Amino acid sequence: MTTFDAMWSDLRPVGRHPATGGYRRYAWTRTDAALREWFRGEARQRGLDVVPDRAGNTWAWTADPDAAADAGRPGLAMGSHLDSVPDGGAFDGPLGVVSAFAALDLVRARGRSPRRPLGIVCFGDEEGARFGVACAGSRLLTGALDPDRARGLTDDQGTTLAEAMTAAGTDPRPLGRDDEALRRVGTFLELHVEQGRALADVPGDRGAVGVAEGIWPHGRWRLDLRGRADHAGTTRLADRQDPTLPLAAAIQAARTAAQRHGALATVGRLRARPNAVNAIPAEITAWLDARGPAAADVHAVVACVAEAAGSTPVEESWTPATPFDPTLRDRLAAVLAGPDGRPAPVLSTGAGHDAGILSAAGVPTAMLFVRNPTGVSHSPAEHADPADCRAGVAALARAVEHLAC
Amino acid sequence: MTTFDAMWSDLRPVGRHPATGGYRRYAWTRTDAALREWFRGEARQRGLDVVPDRAGNTWAWTADPDAAADAGRPGLAMGSHLDSVPDGGAFDGPLGVVSAFAALDLVRARGRSPRRPLGIVCFGDEEGARFGVACAGSRLLTGALDPDRARGLTDDQGTTLAEAMTAAGTDPRPLGRDDEALRRVGTFLELHVEQGRALADVPGDRGAVGVAEGIWPHGRWRLDLRGRADHAGTTRLADRQDPTLPLAAAIQAARTAAQRHGALATVGRLRARPNAVNAIPAEITAWLDARGPAAADVHAVVACVAEAAGSTPVEESWTPATPFDPTLRDRLAAVLAGPDGRPAPVLSTGAGHDAGILSAAGVPTAMLFVRNPTGVSHSPAEHADPADCRAGVAALARAVEHLAC
Repeated sequence: MTTFDAMWSDLRPVGRHPATGGYRRYAWTRTDAALREWFRGEARQRGLDVVPDRAGNTWAWTADPDAAADAGRPGLAMGSHLDSVPDGGAFDGPLGVVSAFAALDLVRARGRSPRRPLGIVCFGDEEGARFGVACAGSRLLTGALDPDRARGLTDDQGTTLAEAMTAAGTDPRPLGRDDEALRRVGTFLELHVEQGRALADVPGDRGAVGVAEGIWPHGRWRLDLRGRADHAGTTRLADRQDPTLPLAAAIQAARTAAQRHGALATVGRLRARPNAVNAIPAEITAWLDARGPAAADVHAVVACVAEAAGSTPVEESWTPATPFDPTLRDRLAAVLAGPDGRPAPVLSTGAGHDAGILSAAGVPTAMLFVRNPTGVSHSPAEHADPADCRAGVAALARAVEHLAC
Repeated sequence: MTTFDAMWSDLRPVGRHPATGGYRRYAWTRTDAALREWFRGEARQRGLDVVPDRAGNTWAWTADPDAAADAGRPGLAMGSHLDSVPDGGAFDGPLGVVSAFAALDLVRARGRSPRRPLGIVCFGDEEGARFGVACAGSRLLTGALDPDRARGLTDDQGTTLAEAMTAAGTDPRPLGRDDEALRRVGTFLELHVEQGRALADVPGDRGAVGVAEGIWPHGRWRLDLRGRADHAGTTRLADRQDPTLPLAAAIQAARTAAQRHGALATVGRLRARPNAVNAIPAEITAWLDARGPAAADVHAVVACVAEAAGSTPVEESWTPATPFDPTLRDRLAAVLAGPDGRPAPVLSTGAGHDAGILSAAGVPTAMLFVRNPTGVSHSPAEHADPADCRAGVAALARAVEHLAC
């Protein structure tokens, strides 16, 4: 685990906010550039060829992936992302990238020779924290996100994605689906910290690592609640057009509808204008995140929130249910069986991942989850035990050996 | 009205946001410095002595106010403030400062000689938009705001008031009650755009200008609603500690309690952390503004909100009911009587003003309100008709002549 620990120490301070202890690693910022540089350095140290794609993601390959694809042996890629939500944890994303490098080191240390190229990928802007669209890098790669729409996305300062990319020294014009990059990937594996408590409830070593069943359908909606700015101390209640009242109704409807429909709904982001103590807001923007095992239930929740708020939500993203490749899933669960022969736990998740985007685009894809003892994620308190992280690297190396050696 | 129009044109672009059309004139910023420089320039053009006080306010006097105070003829000061709420209107504050200069010009043009010095004041940080305490300049001046507390107030970036003042080239160490400045002010007159519709309902010329009865008791409270940051897509509803639910309850309680108690309550400012679409907030901070004719009713509203939110509000400011000097009020209402001899309208307001702070500190004080046809304030849509603004200047000049000539 030496290489894992060294990489983990290198990444630890990058983008960490001293006051909250959380990470603020947003797309196309200086912090993002530092993370990308770290990735390229790790790749070069291992003699890998660094190949950016047209979608803002960075790939590193052990051998010529184009020649291998031409020869009908497309590569096996693994990886995740390095960006974070605001004040996110250390594991969501980086654990998958660091574990991919460490798994490659382990495979090489054991002297195994892959039959096909091994790739490591760092996807760009997975969280969508800055420009609002999650999995922007993998969506652009597979064509699920229109490049014109992507270039025009804006952050809170009004900076477009195109401007931010240009400022970071990357030309935004070639953005778009990249068939060349995609055909190099015969199989994709993403290791990720679990973001719920399914593995935490599995006792002993068997709960250290699980295999993903699929990803729930999920989406993001924006509620533009318009009011009329006015003086808080002089405007009669009857004369007010106060958008906080539909906000309150939307928040309560989100919770009650999610309970009724067996789904999850969250109002995690709010913006009030002008946001002055002594002014009735002119507008409140609230974002609704809704997910669940069944798409119809998720849409029912969104409809309830819309009715309560008296406002038509703007769908910012929608991802249908994403089952992972069932053959691959069952093979990995068997390969990762414990000493008692029982297959590794298989679990579904409500969290979106780049792996889901690739799977939906037809790439045979699997995910491994590493146990999260509290289930807490998107928080500085997110955690995985070192022993479980080691088990994750070992599982990823076994999967690579099984699939590529 | 030439001088009024010229001054109004000079101020119009300063701190105006091109997209919203609203003003963003916050304390101790470059915009604030430009406004203060404008004030000093207007004062110098009129041969006035510019005298800053120890509280961040700027005064301009026609004659030596200390000698006059020593002689038992302390000055008559008029003025208001130049800062704004976020995306505020053009009139709230500047109308009073511009009208003060214009009234002085009118008095001089008519050849009237004041028996006592006339002063014009620009109070600092009336809105509290940046550091959270309204009427900070007049509160510091009168000792109602502790200078140590003031220096430690922080803006959204964590900059303290002391740091902001230092960056603006003003030493924050002398901040505090300024008895020298106060004793120069025998009487204070503040003209202000009305922020409700009391004068709009008075037909004809008689409704152009009114005299203030008093200011309702009012205050600001901060609600710190703590939750636990977690992943929006994976955390079971039952496991959540989601601060948006008490926020919704607080918003609804504010409205229903205000209705029940005949008061006003507003949640105008919100801050969510980490404010990510896909994370349950770790904390929401909501600010409650509550006012009403009776202090007991205002406190009852705050108690209802606290109970609904399950959180103890932090009182950030509280101003008891402030009646203005009744003799002065009645004299001005009579002086400003229309051709039919009926006194000018007298009205109460829920809005706090520097005049209220001075009045509470024992300075004989009066306020004039200029009609606001929609009542809208703290908004780019705030308006007063040019004819009513002219009537305001004329009324202020008449008041000055009556009180000082």
